Amino acid sequence: MTAFTATVTVRLKRGVLDPEAETTQRSLERLGFELADLRSADVFELDLDAEDAEDAADRAEEMAERLLANPTIHDYDVAVAEQ
Amino acid sequence: MTAFTATVTVRLKRGVLDPEAETTQRSLERLGFELADLRSADVFELDLDAEDAEDAADRAEEMAERLLANPTIHDYDVAVAEQ
Repeated sequence: MTAFTATVTVRLKRGVLDPEAETTQRSLERLGFELADLRSADVFELDLDAEDAEDAADRAEEMAERLLANPTIHDYDVAVAEQ
Repeated sequence: MTAFTATVTVRLKRGVLDPEAETTQRSLERLGFELADLRSADVFELDLDAEDAEDAADRAEEMAERLLANPTIHDYDVAVAEQ
């Protein structure tokens, strides 16, 4: 078994309203910054032991499907790196 | 001017308690997943026009310093890519 870190990034699907991102963008603009757009995402870094990177990615994807992301409103991607 | 996307990742500093991550880890373990650790982070993807990648990174860093991160409890990093 090898120690991997799987990084799961959970984003709102295009078209889903993101009031937090809108507020953040407006606050930055009020501070004088110019922005074309701002999107927010949640990242989960999972340390886990797995046979290989594929096994680690499969398990991280299952965790995303079952708990970390809500498939109705979220897209997610998984990246795996050996520790 | 070129369009860039700056990705600002904001993490809690080591040692700062993260009850949301702990709860998420425990929920995953209750579902049968084995994890050594789970850390959460916030990501902001900023679309902005800048002279070059260095200029875009400088501005994203200033936004992190002034609003996106709280330097008392957060570390952040900035990655820039051309759109």
